[in-house]
Amino acid sequence: MIDQKMYELGSRRSVIRELFEFGKKRAAEIGAENVFDFSIGNPSVEAPVAVSDTIKEILSWQPTTKIHGYTSAQGDPIARKAIADNLNERYNQKFSADHVYLTCGAAASLTISLRSLIDADDENVVVFAPFFTEYRVFIESMGAQINVVPALLPSFGLNIEAFKKQVNEKTVAVIINSPNNPTGVIYPEDQLKALAEVLEEKSKEYGHTIYIISDEPYREIAYEKQTPFITNFYKDSIICYSYSKSLSLPGERIGYIIVPNEATDSDKLYAAICGAGRSLGFICAPAMWQHLIAKCCGLTSDLSIYAQNRDLLFNGLTELGFECVHPDGAFYLFVKCMEEDANKFCERAKQYNLLLVPSDDFGCPGYVRVAYCVSADMIKRSMPAFAELAKSYK
Amino acid sequence: MIDQKMYELGSRRSVIRELFEFGKKRAAEIGAENVFDFSIGNPSVEAPVAVSDTIKEILSWQPTTKIHGYTSAQGDPIARKAIADNLNERYNQKFSADHVYLTCGAAASLTISLRSLIDADDENVVVFAPFFTEYRVFIESMGAQINVVPALLPSFGLNIEAFKKQVNEKTVAVIINSPNNPTGVIYPEDQLKALAEVLEEKSKEYGHTIYIISDEPYREIAYEKQTPFITNFYKDSIICYSYSKSLSLPGERIGYIIVPNEATDSDKLYAAICGAGRSLGFICAPAMWQHLIAKCCGLTSDLSIYAQNRDLLFNGLTELGFECVHPDGAFYLFVKCMEEDANKFCERAKQYNLLLVPSDDFGCPGYVRVAYCVSADMIKRSMPAFAELAKSYK
Repeated sequence: MIDQKMYELGSRRSVIRELFEFGKKRAAEIGAENVFDFSIGNPSVEAPVAVSDTIKEILSWQPTTKIHGYTSAQGDPIARKAIADNLNERYNQKFSADHVYLTCGAAASLTISLRSLIDADDENVVVFAPFFTEYRVFIESMGAQINVVPALLPSFGLNIEAFKKQVNEKTVAVIINSPNNPTGVIYPEDQLKALAEVLEEKSKEYGHTIYIISDEPYREIAYEKQTPFITNFYKDSIICYSYSKSLSLPGERIGYIIVPNEATDSDKLYAAICGAGRSLGFICAPAMWQHLIAKCCGLTSDLSIYAQNRDLLFNGLTELGFECVHPDGAFYLFVKCMEEDANKFCERAKQYNLLLVPSDDFGCPGYVRVAYCVSADMIKRSMPAFAELAKSYK
Repeated sequence: MIDQKMYELGSRRSVIRELFEFGKKRAAEIGAENVFDFSIGNPSVEAPVAVSDTIKEILSWQPTTKIHGYTSAQGDPIARKAIADNLNERYNQKFSADHVYLTCGAAASLTISLRSLIDADDENVVVFAPFFTEYRVFIESMGAQINVVPALLPSFGLNIEAFKKQVNEKTVAVIINSPNNPTGVIYPEDQLKALAEVLEEKSKEYGHTIYIISDEPYREIAYEKQTPFITNFYKDSIICYSYSKSLSLPGERIGYIIVPNEATDSDKLYAAICGAGRSLGFICAPAMWQHLIAKCCGLTSDLSIYAQNRDLLFNGLTELGFECVHPDGAFYLFVKCMEEDANKFCERAKQYNLLLVPSDDFGCPGYVRVAYCVSADMIKRSMPAFAELAKSYK
């Protein structure tokens, strides 16, 4: 009586995992310095020194049960207040600490938010292609449908006209992710306004609120312009965040959900989020990391390193004739393949020891995701390999 | 479109939460030293000094991305090997590191295990009363039914005859929890053997394996006798563990699942567990705590303190005329109420500033759970209050 869906989910070899194994094998054969792994979104920039210093300070608390004890399920009140205060100051919001819910990172923020809204099997959640591959896993394994809005080319912004065809009376939520994984695009204000208008109209038409779930782990990795804050456009938004990228703590699993006070049924929704967290088995977010966030939520790693990487890679690849949208943030470049089939393109790239992720699972075939959370040195050393790859298509 | 079940789960005020609020109010009125809070299962014993020392050592690793980066979803290979080696040595098992799955604690171990098995809405999971209250939440919110085996009085062991009536062809798993929350009982070997026999017979009869999910957060808090290891009795067991109690790290969310190699469909089940973890939003267990476990999984806090508390409380209460089973482990005493309705009994106890948890939600009315993970001093000071409570029923 093993669940077949879970078995398939756990046993299907992921493309990224296979690239990882290939990379290890090639590194043994030709030396790690000659393999160019652009497949993983694991932050390459070090955590701020304050992280280590703060942990050491917390470790001096007595007794240790104060450090490591359970917090309330919503999270330590001091951490919740620090998060609300920080966002209120930076984005001119009015979040209250008692509508902040600490989580084990972005994935937990998403599954808990989705679980608080998805009730019946015939409901759906709308996403914009290209989208982070796990959205499909989370939505479908809760028994809902994923309605995919086709990509808006060539900008990879929000395709509002196509969106209207995907939203219907069974839609409970729309996920947006800006800066976007895999394109690096920050959705512009006019598109967010247009999205909000459609959602207000549709919520009225269907007689229930359609929430935006705003997945924002890359919020602070924004180069020339700030990431517009979603609640300034649509009040019925659930903010999902993780410190994985901004503080370079991806393995530590610490993030949050915020339900704005002005959202429709705000208290009820927050209670449902508490219930969803409980039912999924999240007792509380890791306590010591909560205590750290209480002190460090205003800091970030040195994110300018990613901007330098972006310039190196974008300029290098476009000079070689590759087509890609100029990323506003995050640490991904979404590059058009030089043949139709992204998997074949990636196979050919492997001949030049370039590990790239085909875009099919992101809901937008024909591209590759190139993660530039790597050393600048590796980007420079990889350029001859990209040049050979491009030349092979001439 | 907010999920009504999740809303109810998140908004229902828990008994323990209400006791906590009452305790705070009374502490302000009469002084914290005069309020006797026995309601919470939060370890009172400090974490071993090695925990703090090891974290400081890990913080010296360079670069910090090695400390805080993602591990694989199953967990860091070094931590998985350390856990398997430690159990193999202590319990003469043959666990392999690639069947260990690191989790965010016991609740996550349980929801992931349940999700890997529960497929259809008409399935059920059997539990033995009294049982940890969240089992019901986890099972029912996955759409399955909870089949409760009535308590075996007065020993609170496994009620095998009653169990036979609760298991049927739609049973996918049985949860056992030994040492038990809320009774402190360690199920004896002969009962585990009898349970295994019934399950072998029923699995054959129904043509599918019924797994035991063994929830073992109190495994090491065992006084006069060791906790029997479940795989020595039934090979189709899933081991769910947490370091919350043994290392006094409840807030840090670190534990594991093990699928024994000899279990039926072992590889398939492990893959389904990986899939379930992924679908519920558990990317990996907190990385720094995984690195700690790799070094400290053989240690425990000074658990002898709980044995001293048990003696103080058990002897004190039985001398006052209270009836309760002698706990073999964990840190709970399950005491018979002096009137039928446990809620009324707890209300009366509050008049003497005693905070006790009524047993109704544990599936066994008429008792209270008294958590003795508190200071020995508080236990001593509470005795006159217990005496007055008993006297009020004379």
